[in-house]
Amino acid sequence: MTVKFELIKECPHTHARAGILHTPHGDIETPIFMPVGTKATVKAMLPEAVKDAGAQIILSNTYHLHLRPGEDIVKKAGGLHKFMNWDRPILTDSGGFQVFSLAKINDITEEGVSFRSHIDGSLKFISPEKSMQIQNDLGSDIIMAFDECVNPEADYKYTERSMHMTNRWLDRCIAAHKNTDTQSLFGIVQGGMFKDLRRQSVEMTCEKDLPGFSIGGLSVGEEKPLMFELLHYTTPLMPKDKPRYLMGVGSYDAFVEGTASGIDMFDCVMQTRMGRNGAALVRSGRINLKNAKYREDFTPIDPDCDCYVCRNYTKAYLRHLIVADEILGGTLISYHNIAHSTNFMKEMRNAILNDKFVEFKCNFEKVWYNK
Amino acid sequence: MTVKFELIKECPHTHARAGILHTPHGDIETPIFMPVGTKATVKAMLPEAVKDAGAQIILSNTYHLHLRPGEDIVKKAGGLHKFMNWDRPILTDSGGFQVFSLAKINDITEEGVSFRSHIDGSLKFISPEKSMQIQNDLGSDIIMAFDECVNPEADYKYTERSMHMTNRWLDRCIAAHKNTDTQSLFGIVQGGMFKDLRRQSVEMTCEKDLPGFSIGGLSVGEEKPLMFELLHYTTPLMPKDKPRYLMGVGSYDAFVEGTASGIDMFDCVMQTRMGRNGAALVRSGRINLKNAKYREDFTPIDPDCDCYVCRNYTKAYLRHLIVADEILGGTLISYHNIAHSTNFMKEMRNAILNDKFVEFKCNFEKVWYNK
Repeated sequence: MTVKFELIKECPHTHARAGILHTPHGDIETPIFMPVGTKATVKAMLPEAVKDAGAQIILSNTYHLHLRPGEDIVKKAGGLHKFMNWDRPILTDSGGFQVFSLAKINDITEEGVSFRSHIDGSLKFISPEKSMQIQNDLGSDIIMAFDECVNPEADYKYTERSMHMTNRWLDRCIAAHKNTDTQSLFGIVQGGMFKDLRRQSVEMTCEKDLPGFSIGGLSVGEEKPLMFELLHYTTPLMPKDKPRYLMGVGSYDAFVEGTASGIDMFDCVMQTRMGRNGAALVRSGRINLKNAKYREDFTPIDPDCDCYVCRNYTKAYLRHLIVADEILGGTLISYHNIAHSTNFMKEMRNAILNDKFVEFKCNFEKVWYNK
Repeated sequence: MTVKFELIKECPHTHARAGILHTPHGDIETPIFMPVGTKATVKAMLPEAVKDAGAQIILSNTYHLHLRPGEDIVKKAGGLHKFMNWDRPILTDSGGFQVFSLAKINDITEEGVSFRSHIDGSLKFISPEKSMQIQNDLGSDIIMAFDECVNPEADYKYTERSMHMTNRWLDRCIAAHKNTDTQSLFGIVQGGMFKDLRRQSVEMTCEKDLPGFSIGGLSVGEEKPLMFELLHYTTPLMPKDKPRYLMGVGSYDAFVEGTASGIDMFDCVMQTRMGRNGAALVRSGRINLKNAKYREDFTPIDPDCDCYVCRNYTKAYLRHLIVADEILGGTLISYHNIAHSTNFMKEMRNAILNDKFVEFKCNFEKVWYNK
């Protein structure tokens, strides 16, 4: 089966919506936050802990897995789910974003991108066809089209040309994608910081018969007000009957604005990266557990959070672990951050279901902007 | 309550024995392997995983916790069990071994040891009284006497003098220990590499009315045959009705020899340290999962092991995690190593219960020495 989006409820005042995404590895309740398991592991966490933290789907990175261990190994292992012991849905990105952000680019041509591996400097090449082959070998439920993620400072001309290339690449992805019965290819809307290009990109991308679409090239360095403006402009243009995925975005204000614009899926490394650095999510933003003021604070990270970490550990203990450079500190704070984000999403979804999304949004903003 | 040792069964051919140690936080089946949670965490593992790996009791380090976060914090948190979310028994060492192995010693006198912290170089002082105060504040179920752990190359004279000092320190520990109703103080037999000193130390130490005794100063650099010889000489001299604990020893050959000599308790950091370095325990010793030959090995670490890790992960995946420097690699191999060791102990205990310890020992040695 390919993924199927079931629209359950729409907010009468915004574009927010609650739905269910049916996938070969189970259902996902949207809007959803997807934790990132870059190298076939959500960093520092057992899969059981990721599940307990409420994750219904995770994202894994094609670029990293291609370089190490190599998609041939994952395929021989029986696919990514089996390899990493994760039986829920997996989405893989296309490698495009990492090629542009992590690797040293050698050359971008119509054919694809040649670059040097960030691990050993060896010369590599990824094309739309290569990205499809890798993702087909990985066996993820949702696979992403290979696109160029344009720098937000790129001019109109470059952005326009790139958007057209991304569109031609999408056609090649569609042609190259082999497992259409089990893996669902999502197209990616680009168009940089220009509204008319965003509109054109939506039109070109979403006219193709694909099971889902995403917005790329946002949250890549531009100011937040501009990002939100482009989001509110772009998302409602996309088809209502397909899932809409905003790539690489994970802050709570973006969850709320994205959802209000009609986004269904979000992913971000922030929850786990912050966790390993000792920063914990709370409703108003984050707290840094290294701070000396938590030395004798025997309360949980967030007294309103009922996650495993908040039920069992104090800030004083977590601070001790982080200060003493103990791995468990990063594990526990990542655990909390994922749980806190999935709970935030669940609460937002319930608000939509109960016609209270606007109230939820206003209450959230009071806490978020007045900290 | 203090701990109480219940002798269940003795091997008719060796000094091996199976028992139950009753503690304020539950019963422990002996012989037992105790994983080490130095800084109030078994490195890289959630407490639930440590339990699932079969750990019935863990050891934590007085020296490290004194330096960071400080026993005052742990006490205010409600004690070590609550601080670290571990509701099973905890044994703390006295700090003696770490002072001599990790810190830069400033001065050893009859009064105690002054040393420089390995963290910030600050001058610290631990005496028998100080060690008791720290361990009383930590609230562990079993606390250890403050002793001098003598270098195996020390001469007879130094070793003899030190042994007498350790004995005087034990009297001071007994006098200083405040929570005799809830925490059980174990005396430590020293005497270096000299049998007659070991005998004298057993006599001096074990004539005191304490709930348990341990053997210190072995596995500190001497050859294994000498260690085993001293072990087989010393352990049977100790009282039969009290638990006997061999400190800092965790290899399978030592588990078997120690048990044959009448030891009930073992601890070692090896299981978790090896795990974080990518080395996994198997019956014949260890395998290094970084090895390229495991790249496409889709079998578990040990096909005869039924632990969580061997049920769910392949060597290829574990190798990928270790090579990619992913924290989960260390977590999973530590998990396996603890489970493998506790299962080894369980099997050995069952052999004793079924009058098959000698058979178990012979079978083990065939695999261990013919690898």
